[in-house]
Amino acid sequence: MGRSLLSTEDLDATEISSILDRAAWHKRQLSTPATDRALPLRGRLVANLFFEPSTRTRLSFEMAAKRLGAEVVNWTQAGTSAEKGETTLDSAKTIAAMRPDVIVVRHPAAGEPRRLAAQLECPVLNAGDGAHQHPSQALLDALTLREALGELRGRVLAIVGDIAHSRVARSHLFCLPKLGVQLRLCGPPSLLPRGIEGLAPAGTAAVTHSLAEALRGVDAVMLLRIQKERQGEVLYARNNEYSEVYGLNERTVGLLPQGAFILHPGPFNPGVEITQELAASPRSLILKQVENGVLTRMAILERAVLS
Amino acid sequence: MGRSLLSTEDLDATEISSILDRAAWHKRQLSTPATDRALPLRGRLVANLFFEPSTRTRLSFEMAAKRLGAEVVNWTQAGTSAEKGETTLDSAKTIAAMRPDVIVVRHPAAGEPRRLAAQLECPVLNAGDGAHQHPSQALLDALTLREALGELRGRVLAIVGDIAHSRVARSHLFCLPKLGVQLRLCGPPSLLPRGIEGLAPAGTAAVTHSLAEALRGVDAVMLLRIQKERQGEVLYARNNEYSEVYGLNERTVGLLPQGAFILHPGPFNPGVEITQELAASPRSLILKQVENGVLTRMAILERAVLS
Amino acid sequence: MGRSLLSTEDLDATEISSILDRAAWHKRQLSTPATDRALPLRGRLVANLFFEPSTRTRLSFEMAAKRLGAEVVNWTQAGTSAEKGETTLDSAKTIAAMRPDVIVVRHPAAGEPRRLAAQLECPVLNAGDGAHQHPSQALLDALTLREALGELRGRVLAIVGDIAHSRVARSHLFCLPKLGVQLRLCGPPSLLPRGIEGLAPAGTAAVTHSLAEALRGVDAVMLLRIQKERQGEVLYARNNEYSEVYGLNERTVGLLPQGAFILHPGPFNPGVEITQELAASPRSLILKQVENGVLTRMAILERAVLS
Repeated sequence: MGRSLLSTEDLDATEISSILDRAAWHKRQLSTPATDRALPLRGRLVANLFFEPSTRTRLSFEMAAKRLGAEVVNWTQAGTSAEKGETTLDSAKTIAAMRPDVIVVRHPAAGEPRRLAAQLECPVLNAGDGAHQHPSQALLDALTLREALGELRGRVLAIVGDIAHSRVARSHLFCLPKLGVQLRLCGPPSLLPRGIEGLAPAGTAAVTHSLAEALRGVDAVMLLRIQKERQGEVLYARNNEYSEVYGLNERTVGLLPQGAFILHPGPFNPGVEITQELAASPRSLILKQVENGVLTRMAILERAVLS
Repeated sequence: MGRSLLSTEDLDATEISSILDRAAWHKRQLSTPATDRALPLRGRLVANLFFEPSTRTRLSFEMAAKRLGAEVVNWTQAGTSAEKGETTLDSAKTIAAMRPDVIVVRHPAAGEPRRLAAQLECPVLNAGDGAHQHPSQALLDALTLREALGELRGRVLAIVGDIAHSRVARSHLFCLPKLGVQLRLCGPPSLLPRGIEGLAPAGTAAVTHSLAEALRGVDAVMLLRIQKERQGEVLYARNNEYSEVYGLNERTVGLLPQGAFILHPGPFNPGVEITQELAASPRSLILKQVENGVLTRMAILERAVLS
Repeated sequence: MGRSLLSTEDLDATEISSILDRAAWHKRQLSTPATDRALPLRGRLVANLFFEPSTRTRLSFEMAAKRLGAEVVNWTQAGTSAEKGETTLDSAKTIAAMRPDVIVVRHPAAGEPRRLAAQLECPVLNAGDGAHQHPSQALLDALTLREALGELRGRVLAIVGDIAHSRVARSHLFCLPKLGVQLRLCGPPSLLPRGIEGLAPAGTAAVTHSLAEALRGVDAVMLLRIQKERQGEVLYARNNEYSEVYGLNERTVGLLPQGAFILHPGPFNPGVEITQELAASPRSLILKQVENGVLTRMAILERAVLS
């Protein structure tokens, strides 16, 4: 009953395209009167289980569910039974026993959503697990790129920043190459694990420590959020050195081809990964990503509950 | 698409009356069976953005939205991206990109809701901005007075307390006089800014430091919440001096005409602005204000989304 | 207008059975397509007022309401007007003035829900008040036992643990004997108030300090949550002495008849009242209790709003 979404690794090109097509359909529906729209998940219950705080992703799933007519309950770890010694699995089994139609899980530990899905009867959607996967983010980025670039086959995307700790980067390695996109992963050695390009099919991902090399001829660049504490203490002697070398700013944007687009999964640190000006510029797709997030999650929720 | 409500300054008498009439209509609907009531905002999404805590106003907007069939998502600053350095505008643009039908904003800075409305595509409702405006509160008070007094033209309302820091008082200066109500603003000099009566049309508002003078012949009095910390440290040597001079209690209530009503935007400090007994007395309209708050916000939400 | 549920003391056997029957009907409905299910509380508003934290019970009521088509607003004490000096009654009257169809109250003080119900116009459901009552928990347990055991008349249930501080135990003393169940209350002297069996009808409840005696020939045992701080400091010299004497574990489970079932209102302390293994064993009804909690609360909400 129902289909989980745990990792982009589990999706083939057809499934990815089918989710993107459905999200695009929902986008077209937004221009029809609200009263004419169907509510395919009316009477259904979505339970958000967040073992890690996230306003943005939780709200996006919540809005997606509500646009489909579903009801949502939110469970977060703070101030709950988790403090009383309940394990993740106990908490999830308890929520599942209340018989929601789908459970959305964010967890700090990689693999926890898959472990839960194996134990629960209802479908599980991974809303981010450690540095492992954030599949709905990869799909919404794919939709955003497809809207901006049209056919994705042969396109090149650079992903720049903290690749090591990024579940977004890992999700893309299993997603965009299936649609024909070439990936370039770029960051300082400490944030770019040796051999990570091997997660993608052979020949579809490359790594570089040079921003100039990463941006040469790309169709789009995605900047990843850098933890401020990592920037200063771990990686660099001076506080702003990261942004000088790997941040997108007035100077480094010159390395980006004229028509290339800019993405960021958000929230961004102004002046670190990207300047406020570039984030708000016409070539930035950051707010499109947010908009497409809700639409993509609508498609993912329908797939989970109705298929 | 849709109409914001940012300040009572922007409303003329016709618009105010039209909102009150619709709220009164919703009140009559409450006596019909729930199953017979229309849900005019079914399929719509209301996003509450609270940059300052407020249980009461947020719940009131939430109930109003839900009574109309709309779905609600709540965003509050605590524990969110705001901590990660996101600005108010970034946060609001992100939420707006998720395409809610209307955004309800409370913010500690005066003018912020108007600034957001100018940048966002969806209508914005001001749920209180600093000491500037709280338009839905003024409208619900107007409805409450109209119910209690009938025709408002020629009526006199005293507003007593911390006028300086009160967005409620400022909202009334631009609202009630348009309906023909005379205002008297009363408080100690430190809480009554010189010239504030000038915000209302000439001749419709007066100021006084004397409670006796303020209450003489009024149809109703509205007490404003006093911050306890201001009462003791800033204004007075002794802790209870404020309530002796400006509080409504067994003694001072004698200054109020027999038939005059008592209002307070709540929550009140028992024994400071008003005693518990007077707040619970038959002439108190405090709970009517709460009830009318939901109904008035229903009218405001419909106006924002459907007009 | 509407019927409160404040204590199992107020229910007779017919009313209890009627609630359980309706909950069982809702359970059968779960196997029909979601699109075919009625939403009998569509357009209704449920207000959760929690003066004490509780994720599990709040979520259960929230899911129950939403499965019926009702909307829910949540009010919790933390960070609200309660901090500004508002009393419980003021807060409840304010929420009630917003005209929800039913209010669900959890409060640390015994009797507070009944006091509120006497003052408010809308029905009140007690979701736990101090060590007094938690009627929906008793009803969901009764449903769970009825499902597992069939006819309840003549059955024997042992309740083991912190009887003194347990609103669940007190709720059962007024509930299960009306259905013909014999109760045995068991715990150390400090946790088993003298004469508590007198709350149940004469001859329907007995007390013992011996686990062996309590479990002899029972049809089911319910373990109660023990506060860890009480276990170590107040009651026993050694930290694990409680679980050795009164906990259900590999050794003590031998005292339980073969076919007897295990219940716990949750969340349990693994290794204290019960081991993780026994809690997850086929004879454990713990997750059934959670599932039945939502269904029983659906019946309770319908009774409150529609009858």
